[in-house]
Amino acid sequence: MREAQDDEVFPESAQPGSEPVQSATDSVTSPDLKRLIDDFSAEYEDSLISFRRKLHAGPELSFQEFATTDAVAERLTQAGLSTHRLPSGTGLFCDIGVAGTRVALRADLDALAMPDGKAVPYRSQNDGVAHACGHDVHTSIVLGAALVLSRLSEMGLLPGQLRVIFEPGEEQVPGGAVEVVELGLLRDIAMVFAVHCDPKLDVGVVGSRVGPITSAADRVEVTLHGPGGHTARPNLTVDLVALMARLIQELPDKLEARLGGPQNCRMVFGAAHAGDAVNVIPATAVVGGSLRTPDLVAWDSAPRALTESLEEILGDSGASWEVIHVRGVPPVTNDSGAAEIAAQCVQDLLGQDALVKTEHSWGGDSFGWMTKETRGAFLRLGTHDPKQDTRLDLHHRQFDVAEEAILIGVRLLCRTAVSALSELQESSSR
Amino acid sequence: MREAQDDEVFPESAQPGSEPVQSATDSVTSPDLKRLIDDFSAEYEDSLISFRRKLHAGPELSFQEFATTDAVAERLTQAGLSTHRLPSGTGLFCDIGVAGTRVALRADLDALAMPDGKAVPYRSQNDGVAHACGHDVHTSIVLGAALVLSRLSEMGLLPGQLRVIFEPGEEQVPGGAVEVVELGLLRDIAMVFAVHCDPKLDVGVVGSRVGPITSAADRVEVTLHGPGGHTARPNLTVDLVALMARLIQELPDKLEARLGGPQNCRMVFGAAHAGDAVNVIPATAVVGGSLRTPDLVAWDSAPRALTESLEEILGDSGASWEVIHVRGVPPVTNDSGAAEIAAQCVQDLLGQDALVKTEHSWGGDSFGWMTKETRGAFLRLGTHDPKQDTRLDLHHRQFDVAEEAILIGVRLLCRTAVSALSELQESSSR
Repeated sequence: MREAQDDEVFPESAQPGSEPVQSATDSVTSPDLKRLIDDFSAEYEDSLISFRRKLHAGPELSFQEFATTDAVAERLTQAGLSTHRLPSGTGLFCDIGVAGTRVALRADLDALAMPDGKAVPYRSQNDGVAHACGHDVHTSIVLGAALVLSRLSEMGLLPGQLRVIFEPGEEQVPGGAVEVVELGLLRDIAMVFAVHCDPKLDVGVVGSRVGPITSAADRVEVTLHGPGGHTARPNLTVDLVALMARLIQELPDKLEARLGGPQNCRMVFGAAHAGDAVNVIPATAVVGGSLRTPDLVAWDSAPRALTESLEEILGDSGASWEVIHVRGVPPVTNDSGAAEIAAQCVQDLLGQDALVKTEHSWGGDSFGWMTKETRGAFLRLGTHDPKQDTRLDLHHRQFDVAEEAILIGVRLLCRTAVSALSELQESSSR
Repeated sequence: MREAQDDEVFPESAQPGSEPVQSATDSVTSPDLKRLIDDFSAEYEDSLISFRRKLHAGPELSFQEFATTDAVAERLTQAGLSTHRLPSGTGLFCDIGVAGTRVALRADLDALAMPDGKAVPYRSQNDGVAHACGHDVHTSIVLGAALVLSRLSEMGLLPGQLRVIFEPGEEQVPGGAVEVVELGLLRDIAMVFAVHCDPKLDVGVVGSRVGPITSAADRVEVTLHGPGGHTARPNLTVDLVALMARLIQELPDKLEARLGGPQNCRMVFGAAHAGDAVNVIPATAVVGGSLRTPDLVAWDSAPRALTESLEEILGDSGASWEVIHVRGVPPVTNDSGAAEIAAQCVQDLLGQDALVKTEHSWGGDSFGWMTKETRGAFLRLGTHDPKQDTRLDLHHRQFDVAEEAILIGVRLLCRTAVSALSELQESSSR
């Protein structure tokens, strides 16, 4: 059973006008530094929009982001920076600054295996591959932030060090973030930040929350085996289609009972297959679904909860069974300190009302591997053009963004990185 | 969704030693006539066994029984009888006698699409086709009865007329019996009789009952349509796999409630298919199963009960649906008078204990079209060799019979036909 490439972050209830996140601290970045960031960012806007359109027209699938990696590396090298390609062949990182606390910004490079249904000049030229999840935008924003902050660094104005990470294969489970973590690239990072396009929010609005903001998403596949038989005589065998139906109906409740209730656990089936003929009771049935939780503790308990629940449902049925439980990504969990710094920067840059609190989503993002490793925050960057009537979801074949979001993203990540560095330096020197 | 060729009659609880059917009337056939029948039958035994083995080695699928039809016609023609091939190309009937009440004997000609797993010299020479349902035996028995009774007729000893019907395509729904009925071949038939091999009964034992002895078996296929979506967000769409599971679980109960309880209705699913990916909620789901009832009244109500039950389960679900309800065969319903005549002949021929009462089976047989048209009885002819330890069910790839059952079958059907004719003549002249 395949897994579609669509475990993106996807907020359900984030809407402009939701309750603003309160931020207690003031920005620690001086007005001059902020003005410098904003001005430098503006200088790059046109070239970043061009860059984004180039990526959009040449999307690449997970772990095949060769041209994308080359394009990012070329642009960083032109700016005098040293880039490091990941050993697996795609993805890269780049360090800026020479001493002090280090924070990281993360982008993801890959596109989706789906057609691009738009008519714009920059539509995908690669048949069946499209940047319908906004990773082209994320990459352009983090590239822009690197260019801006490297200039600050050259001017001696960066209060620490910055690492920019361009992660390959985010759309695959468990995602290129695993390689990033295994290489130790998060080891000396005090805080890590990322943005994700959110077409449910207007451009100029940013969503955030403290705690889990995406979910763990595991893949669960159960195969049932029975003796098979004739539909005239279910009493002589195991009625496997009925048993499969019972499993589909009961497993979600059993898991919820073990993992903290429906707020904490969502088991939903995407596929169920049994039998070929209407009058033959089949000997095999297969069901597959995703088991999601925003709670790291529940995620750790999931394998045992699954085994126990299956035993409870199927134990006396007369059927035998096998289960495949593929662990997905952990939930992205926003650290309160990191989220607060980012929230303050959102309000400082875009106004008090620009910050909205979102619910956690039941989707996953491989950035969860990074927030499991160090403190971090994941921000939902509004990309909807309010002049457009329709809001096209992520993964829609006509998905596109209001490109003003790129400049906003660059300014926001630069300010957030500088603010985090300043605050971390300050608190370590207190 | 295909339908396997296995809606055979298949008793569940018929066992030697069950309660004997009481028969009030005495045989109306004289001892001399019975002796003549038994002696003539014995003369044909060897050639009928050879004939059966020839059919067994050359099995033909439903409505392709050309060689089988030819073989039966040739044998009847050799005996001086006129045969009539059915207009559809296979199957035939033959009339014996010139005046008076008419009864019919019915055999079925077709084999199953399955391999013959036996090592005997007469194993199937047609790859993937096998007489695993005993129709070769039924055909040989009715052929033998025609040969014996035509000799009685020539001698002026047949108290009426006989029609032998060799039905094609019994294994298909709705079966060649529909053509037989539509041709009017049952119109002037006072009673019709048939035997079916029963490997659950020892050879020399015969099962019967008054009322339904097989079930109607309809084919039901329901397709569900929803908007589809992501397994992270079942709340934004219709969770179609869960809905399919609910349908599988609830439909049997709803139908039973409308059609007279579990004794009267059996809805069992053979197939259920939805979705391709574990993390995508599918937009389509299909389930298929068989809806069985031994009750003609319930069978007539089934289409409405199905429509109402689906509306009740799916009405508020947000999904749309289509249902395909293919009417199968009606239940074979044994007329009390016809069953009594046959039962008396069983006990007279084989002894009091040779007759066992069976429960109705949940399988179907196209002979139901004939007992819907006229009075009739369907007898389960024991074919198990008591020297064998294992009982191989009908449709088993090694299915075979104790060939003594052929002579028993010929004698029983001849005696039953003559007895029925005598009794019917007598009652009409009373």
